[in-house]
Formats: sequence, C-alpha cells, structure tokens
Amino acid sequence: MNYKERLALIRSALKNRKIDAFIIPNSDPHLGTNLVAHWRIIEWISGFTGSAGTLVITKDFYGLWTDSRYLIQAEYQLRGLGISVLNIAGSENQGWMEWLSKNLEKGNRIAIDGRIMSISQFKRLENLVNENNLTINFESDLISELWTDRPVLPDKKAFNHEVKYSGRDRLSKINEVRKEMHDSAIDYQLLASPDDIMWLLNIRGGDLEFSPLLLSFAILSDDQILLFADENKIPLSIAHEFDKLGIVILPYEEIYSVLSAIETDTSLLVSPTTTSAMLYRSIPEGVRLIEDLTIPAKLKAVKNEVEIEGLSKCMLRDGTALTKFFYNLEKIKGSQPLTEITVTTILNRIRAQQENFVGLSFSSIVAYNAHAALPHYSAVPDTDADINPVGILLTDSGSHYFEGTTDITRTICLGEPTDLLKKDFTLVLKGMINLALAKFPSGTYGYQLDILARKALWENGFNYGHGTGHGVGFCLNVHEGPHGISPLAGTVRYPLQPGMVVTDEPGIYRQGLHGIRTENMLLCVEDEVTEFGNFLKFNTLSLCYIDTSLVDISLLEKSEINWLNNYHTVVYEKLSPYLDEDEKQWLRIKTSPLINPALNT
Amino acid sequence: MNYKERLALIRSALKNRKIDAFIIPNSDPHLGTNLVAHWRIIEWISGFTGSAGTLVITKDFYGLWTDSRYLIQAEYQLRGLGISVLNIAGSENQGWMEWLSKNLEKGNRIAIDGRIMSISQFKRLENLVNENNLTINFESDLISELWTDRPVLPDKKAFNHEVKYSGRDRLSKINEVRKEMHDSAIDYQLLASPDDIMWLLNIRGGDLEFSPLLLSFAILSDDQILLFADENKIPLSIAHEFDKLGIVILPYEEIYSVLSAIETDTSLLVSPTTTSAMLYRSIPEGVRLIEDLTIPAKLKAVKNEVEIEGLSKCMLRDGTALTKFFYNLEKIKGSQPLTEITVTTILNRIRAQQENFVGLSFSSIVAYNAHAALPHYSAVPDTDADINPVGILLTDSGSHYFEGTTDITRTICLGEPTDLLKKDFTLVLKGMINLALAKFPSGTYGYQLDILARKALWENGFNYGHGTGHGVGFCLNVHEGPHGISPLAGTVRYPLQPGMVVTDEPGIYRQGLHGIRTENMLLCVEDEVTEFGNFLKFNTLSLCYIDTSLVDISLLEKSEINWLNNYHTVVYEKLSPYLDEDEKQWLRIKTSPLINPALNT
Repeated sequence: MNYKERLALIRSALKNRKIDAFIIPNSDPHLGTNLVAHWRIIEWISGFTGSAGTLVITKDFYGLWTDSRYLIQAEYQLRGLGISVLNIAGSENQGWMEWLSKNLEKGNRIAIDGRIMSISQFKRLENLVNENNLTINFESDLISELWTDRPVLPDKKAFNHEVKYSGRDRLSKINEVRKEMHDSAIDYQLLASPDDIMWLLNIRGGDLEFSPLLLSFAILSDDQILLFADENKIPLSIAHEFDKLGIVILPYEEIYSVLSAIETDTSLLVSPTTTSAMLYRSIPEGVRLIEDLTIPAKLKAVKNEVEIEGLSKCMLRDGTALTKFFYNLEKIKGSQPLTEITVTTILNRIRAQQENFVGLSFSSIVAYNAHAALPHYSAVPDTDADINPVGILLTDSGSHYFEGTTDITRTICLGEPTDLLKKDFTLVLKGMINLALAKFPSGTYGYQLDILARKALWENGFNYGHGTGHGVGFCLNVHEGPHGISPLAGTVRYPLQPGMVVTDEPGIYRQGLHGIRTENMLLCVEDEVTEFGNFLKFNTLSLCYIDTSLVDISLLEKSEINWLNNYHTVVYEKLSPYLDEDEKQWLRIKTSPLINPALNT
Repeated sequence: MNYKERLALIRSALKNRKIDAFIIPNSDPHLGTNLVAHWRIIEWISGFTGSAGTLVITKDFYGLWTDSRYLIQAEYQLRGLGISVLNIAGSENQGWMEWLSKNLEKGNRIAIDGRIMSISQFKRLENLVNENNLTINFESDLISELWTDRPVLPDKKAFNHEVKYSGRDRLSKINEVRKEMHDSAIDYQLLASPDDIMWLLNIRGGDLEFSPLLLSFAILSDDQILLFADENKIPLSIAHEFDKLGIVILPYEEIYSVLSAIETDTSLLVSPTTTSAMLYRSIPEGVRLIEDLTIPAKLKAVKNEVEIEGLSKCMLRDGTALTKFFYNLEKIKGSQPLTEITVTTILNRIRAQQENFVGLSFSSIVAYNAHAALPHYSAVPDTDADINPVGILLTDSGSHYFEGTTDITRTICLGEPTDLLKKDFTLVLKGMINLALAKFPSGTYGYQLDILARKALWENGFNYGHGTGHGVGFCLNVHEGPHGISPLAGTVRYPLQPGMVVTDEPGIYRQGLHGIRTENMLLCVEDEVTEFGNFLKFNTLSLCYIDTSLVDISLLEKSEINWLNNYHTVVYEKLSPYLDEDEKQWLRIKTSPLINPALNT
C-alpha cells in the first residue's frame, strides 16, 4: 500500500464514521516527538519524517502543519500526494486550529486520539469547538484498525544509572520531591514524561532510538510510587531495589484506570504540557488539580556537581571525537569519493568509540551546501549528496554518555568561501558569542536573552526561524526544558538558574544555497552579587574549533575576537592530550589566534 | 479620623462581618490606576498615594504589596502605621495571594469588591481559594459605609475630539470594528476601558486629573452601541450626533444589569485584563465568551498618518517647553532659592502655555538627588527638597494635546558630576540609545527588545526594577498598551507594529544617593523587506537635549556617539525656530557634538 492509498483509506474510514476532520499530531502517549515506530503515524500515512507536525484530513483537504525547520523537507517528502504544507509560524493554535475554525461548518465532527494530544492543546481545540458549534470525539484510535502491520512497542531492558554518574541516590531524590509536595500541599503527582521518571528512579531504558528512556508513567504519593511500565523490561535487581522503596510496578496501560480511581478531595499535580487529554480526562471530578511543571522537571534541569563534572568529561570525549573526525575529513577530502551518508557513518563510528558512550543523542546531521539550509536535514539514500571541495559542510551531532548528553554544531569550509558565506558565518558567530558572553540578573528568562544571538543578523535584515537554544537532559532527552532560549515566551516558562545547561545555536538558512549554524552548549553559573541583586553568566561547555577560514574579521568587535581567541586556546589545551602528534599540529593551526590589524594599532 | 483609626475601624467591621481577610486593590471599575478621589480607597485608609498597590487587612496583619517603583515611597508614607510593605516582584499572583495561601486557615473568608478587581486576577484568587478550602465574597463594598465623607464622582463635561486631530470620523471607526467583529463571528463586545470608548466615539472627557476620559462602559453589537455614562456629562450636540449613529446613552451603573440580560447563544468579546470580576460575573451562562483584547484596543495602538503628524507637532511644543524650562532653570539657579515644588510649578506653567494643551499627562516629577531614586516620586510639601548646585535633577513630565500625548524624562547635572554619576548616566544612556537603534523583524514582541536597554547596566552588575517602556495613548492615557517593552512577557502580549508609539526609559536608582532616567518616545516604522521578512525600526519622536556634561565618552561605542550627535543636530534644527536668540545660543552649546579622540585617530 503506498501513501496515496493510505490517505484514501483513512478518508473513506472517516466517511464511514461520519467524521469531518481527523487530526493526527506527531506524538505519543508521553507527548514526545522522538517516536518509536509504533507511533510514527504521520510517517506511515505520508512518508514525512520531521519531528514536528500535525496532519489534518478532511473529505476534500490534506494539510500538514509544521515549523520552519521542516517546511522544505515536508514539501519534498510529500510531493505528489496533494498534501498542503503549512507553517505553524509560532502560533499558539499552530495554524491548523485557525484553519479548522475557518473551514468547518456548524455541526461538523472532529476526531482525535486523546492519548497523543496534550491537554493544553486539547483545551484550545475545545474552545474552538465551542465557538464554532462543532463536536469532538477524543477517543478516535482510527489508525490501529487500518495499520494492520503496525510495529509493536519495543522490549529493550532498562538499566541502573549509577550514583557515581547521577550524583544522588534515588531515595534522596524521592525524599526531596516528597518534601516539595508536602510543602505545597500536593497529595499526588502524575509523571507522564519518562524523563522525569528516569531521573527520579536513577534508571535508563532502551525504548527510543535517541533517548535512553523506558516508556512509563508514574503516580507519586507520600507513601507510594506506582510505576506503569512493562514489567519484563525491568531487571530483577532493579525491581528488588524498587520494592524496598515502595515502588510498585503496574502494567503500562493501566495508568488510565488507576488515575480514574484516585479518591476525591485530594490534590493532584499535573503538567498541562506533558499530560495527554486522555490522561487528564481520566482524573475524577473532585480531585483538586494543580497545573504546573512537575517537581522532577524543575529539579533535574539544575545539574548537580557530580553531573557538571561528568559533563566536562563528555565534552573532552565529544571534542576529541569531532576533532579527529574533521582532521580525517580534511585528510581524505579529494582523495576518495565522499557523500553525506559516508561522512555520517565516519562521524557516528568515531562517536561510538568514546568511553561510556550510550548512543547518539539524535540522528546526526551532515548536510552539504543547499541541504544545510534545511535545519534538521538528515541524509537518506534518496537525497544523499556528493561532497566536493566547494562551499560548506554543516554537522550537528551529539551523544549520550553515562555522564551526560552532548549536542554540537559546526559549519566548516570545503573550498574558497564566497563573501556571502563569510558574512553569514561571521554574523551567526557574533550571535553565538554574544549569547555566550551574556551577564544577567537572577530570574531572567531565556526569552529575554534570545535577541543577543540574533541582533547581528537582524541588523543586516537576516534571521532564522527556530529558537536559539534548548535545555539538555542528562543522559535523557537532548531537548529537555523547562528552560530554553527562544523568542516564544510561552516555550520558556522557567527562568535560568545556576546549574542549567542550554544550547546556543543561531543559524542562517538560504534556500537552495547554503545553511550555517554554530552551536555550543552553555552552563549557567553564578557571576557576582551587587546591590542590584545576584548576577549570572554562562560558561561554554563544548570544545571544538570554529572554522576561522569562514570568518570576516572586519565584522567582529574586539570583545568577540577576544572570546574566539580565548576559546581556541582552551580548546587546544584541553583536547591536545587526547590527540596524536599529527592531529595536535593540525589543531594548533585551526586554533591559532585571529588578529585584526585595524583594532591593534 | 487618622489613618490608624481608619485601619482599626475596618478591622472591627471585618470582625463584625466574620471576614478574615479584606483585599483592596488600587483600582476603579475600569481597572485604571489613575483614580478619581472617590476610588482612592488605599489613600483614604493609609495615606499611600502610589498608583500600584494592594492592601490586605486581616485580624492581625496589615500588608501593602506594591512594585519596586513605590517601595521606598510606601515605607515613607506608611511609617508608624504597622503596615508591612511588600514587593510584588513581578509575580503573577502579586505576592499577596501567596501570602494569603500561607497565612489563612481552612474555612477562612476573604472579601473583595468585585467591581475593582480584574477577572484575570480574580480567577487566580479563586484557584487559591479552592486549593486552600477558603471562601470568597466578591460583593463586599465595605468602604462605602465606613467612608462617610467619600467624594462623589466628578461631573466634568465630555467634548468632541475633532477629525482633524483623530484623522478618522466615528462612523468609519465603528464600521471597521463591526467588520472585525463580523469576521470573527462576535455578536457583542464589552468595552470596559473608557479609552477604548473615547477612541471609538471621538470624544474626550474630564473625569480624571491626568487622562481626558469620560468614565463610561459600552456594549457594541452589529446594529447598536449602548454607552453607559452620566447623561449630564454629554453635551447635546454630541448626544445628537450619537443618536444619528444608533448610540444609546444609558445610566453608568446600569452596565451590570444590562450585561446580565444579554441573550444566550450569542458570542461576547471581553478583555480579561480590563474587565472586572463583577462585570464578568454579570454575564449570563450560555453566552459564549471570547477572551481577547478588545478590537478598539488593538486598532488605536496603531496611530494613523494624521495622528503621527499631530504627534510631531506635540513634540515641537514639548521640546520647546522643556528647553525654555531648562534654560530658565540654569539662569535662575543660585540666584534664587529653588525647591522641587517651585521648579515643578515653573515646568507646569511653561507646559500649560503650549498650543492646544489639554492637561498634564501625569503628575510632573521633579526629583533632586536621593528623591530621584524613587522612580515615581512626586514632591509634596512634606518632602519638598531645596535644590542646590550639587548632584542631579530628574524631571519626568508630559502633556496631553489635542494632537497627542507626550512623556519625556531628562536628568541634568547641577554641579560637578562624580565619576559614579557619569558612569550611571552613561550606562543608562547607552541602553536608551541601543533600544532606539533596534532593527527587528515584524512580529517581534517588546519583551524581546527589553534587554537592549539593560545590557550595558547588566554588564556592570546594575539594573532597574521597572519596565523599559510603555505604549502611549493619543490624548488618552499616557500608559496605554497593549504593547510595551518589558521583561514580563505577560504584560506585552501584542507585537510591535508600524504606527505604534512606545517609551524608551531605562534608569538606575541608588537609594539615598541619586536616581537617573532618560526617556524618549519612539515611533515604530517600516525598515526594509528582505528574503527573511519584513523588518521594523524606531524613529525617535521626543525632542530635547541630553545633558552631555554627565556623559563619560570613554564608555560609548562609536555608533552610540553618532546617534547622540545626530540626535542633537535634529533637536537644534527643529526647536531653534521656536526659541529666542539667547535660548538658541544656549541650546547650540547644549547640543554641540561629542568627539571621542580615541575613536577618531
């Protein structure tokens, strides 16, 4: 069955069921976007593989709403299917709700699978439904019947995340969470995000390709923790430890019924952005809902000293891997045919050789010239490009280690750079540096700092359509809030605090021509205390040279040149002990200081 | 009866009524902060005159929550009364809700006057009440009984705001608003903010000291406008015009009962931040509520060409008045005793002499040295300070003209500046200039730009506790959104658009020492269209020299010096035709260009 046939199959199923619009978010019951095959419904229907998307199917319309990262990719992957590709453009209602409100008629019926839509999105949808006299069925699991060879859920075993990596045993974490629940008069807490559960219980899983998670839910109370997960995936040694701590393992699917049995006149903390409509609707009336971030979500965003020390080790491994990779690439460039896929293979192999490597933290991006203009491009045989000594190569990659998670992007020059390339690269670099140099009072939100990474671009009439940075989990999700650096205040509802890790990744994308992005990970730390309060700053964690052959030094301020030269000194000092003589010599050249004669007279 | 007796009187009334906590926001039924005497309840009880504040009274606690602008003033005005002064510190729940939730006990009863609390605040209060098993009475008008000599509402006549000033007749405005209602399927719209009504109906009133408003409500539908206002205040000529347009005048107090009679199965647009709990609760169930900014609030924020041209005229008058004022001040300084009040009188007199002057747009601030550290200080006989040739004088003032509203702050040097004064002044100036120089894509919110005005201060560990800029009404409120420049994303929920006016007013406040603020008004305009979208920038509207004797040029970038020199050229060119020879010569010196030798070699 091809995509056209699948689309037609769904449309006819809608007709039979008298459904006027079927909405499919790219999501799973944990509202993740890093999906197991079982939940890749949009990919099964249409072939679109982007991580963000909502597919809307009506009797005479197919539309996929996605964000600017995936617009070009969606146009390409959906060509010929008659699916309109539309931009959510940062709209709270994501565009498709507006579309529905304009195009549906009174009395029309909307269907969704409430297990994979967040309650906050569902509530906005309900408003729309009420305003337009529509009806909604939120228990429409249409797909299971139609997708006959649908993959089952994975069965990889969970493993213990040792205290020497996490810095705290599970009992101390559980006690702290319970104390905070007690202080806020919270009787129960629903954890619907597996990363919250992994952090709390010091375990990791193998269910997802790029996040070491065990698919699970949990309900916490003062004296019990109910863990909803496949018992077969939990090793006996861990189950035994859990038993001692009052952690009861129940079948994964039972979360809905257990939740519906919570006694009334109790209070329950739920996180509206990570809780599905179905979970939310399972909660009995009479239970007092407290809608906020979960306590583990807040606590785990602030890395402890052991975690920070571990991250430094990851950065040495990561920087060494990337240096060896770029060194190799430069050596073999021109002497053997290279494509995006062969280069990706080399990169991933070097990554996998590092100590305590758990897995890639996302699908490595190796994008040549115009492909780099697709911010989340991933080469597949169909698109694989030959890499020639012209233009640029963008690599965005990262790994999970037991000691933390990395994410780094570099854009390197393969030939003689054009003036536009140098201008674009330098403006992006200025943005990256100026965010890294930020000093700000305690309580500052990431949305306040976002402009620092964009200002140089804006001054030239340039911009990029994605956020500037995301929080990074600890051997969990590479994208993990609740903080971040973005112009969208609603996505970064938590201020930056010492111990938080965030990426700094401005870019510029010229369709059909090239894309540039430079990304480091930053650690938020204390700066100074003055009569005006407590000030914070960032330390740069990532270690890898920045290709100065793409820098137009006349565009840099003295402070920016100083940052770059200091950074390169640190990169060389920290990485050279892990390199052989040839690599060392090569890195010394790559990290040699930039001198602007105009500024030094 | 003194304040202590009033506080005791209220406490005993609470006891009689079995009320455990009485909450008094500084507000009126339009949720304004610029209040007529009738609504200055907190001032009557306690003597506190700040525009932002919430007073909480329980059986054993008095607390006033206010923002950083008024903390020092509140400590001063409330001394000896046993009222704790607390900082709302940007908290959504404004601090006092947290206090209630910690200090009240199960079953306690809270009372408020629902006419003067916004529904958005009331809903948060309700959540708290539910979470903590409290009860709430929102119809507690305790004050009317106790305040026996309470002033009545003012009776000033409204007047016509001519089309030559507003640029559009009332019919064209009404038609546009109705078209937007129709397009969004809105049957009714509640206007609870008099500024919305003044703009829509091209009238102005005289009810408030500093805003030419007629206290009124309105309900709009497709074929009628119900205006709730005191009929005696509306001249017959206007009433006649209204009649022709289907505008029906009803008694002011009838808004609650008419609202409660709206037929169900209709849709009603209400603005949660400008609608009181009492109004909101009057709406029958079954009416579909659409919660958003009102349509006039959105439309009037974007000034039309006639308004923009009028504003330019206001700036000439304003700049001329301030120049004459500062010239005079310098002449008489030392030769006659000056105090903050005598200087305020001089300033207000010069302001009132300008063509088409309607009134001051707020109570003029003339603050000497340590008094300037109170961002909204207004001299009263009790605090009036002698002005000596030492330190600085801060003046923040503005006027309403038929052609628009102004707001400008300058800090001038009275003697030999200290290094700290120059550093503070220059860092604030850098912030002011960098916001004025901003270029940003269409769709940018004010919270994204706020840091531009703070960055230089933050880099030195300094900061200020207020927003950077507010929208400005057109012969309406000097503070008028929905846009603004602030770190609080929730307060600037509307992106900047060409035609919007906003202030740019960073500052620094050193308690007991000095305060510095420099403020210009900016107009948002189109810049350029690139492949990355539509870019906007600001034009500076305000015209008045900036005291360069307070500038430490070594702290300025070349671009900042250029901005300042260009600005001074424009100030001189535009204002000199309105000055006499002596003033002209004086202004030429005040506006002479700064030259930094270090940057010009």
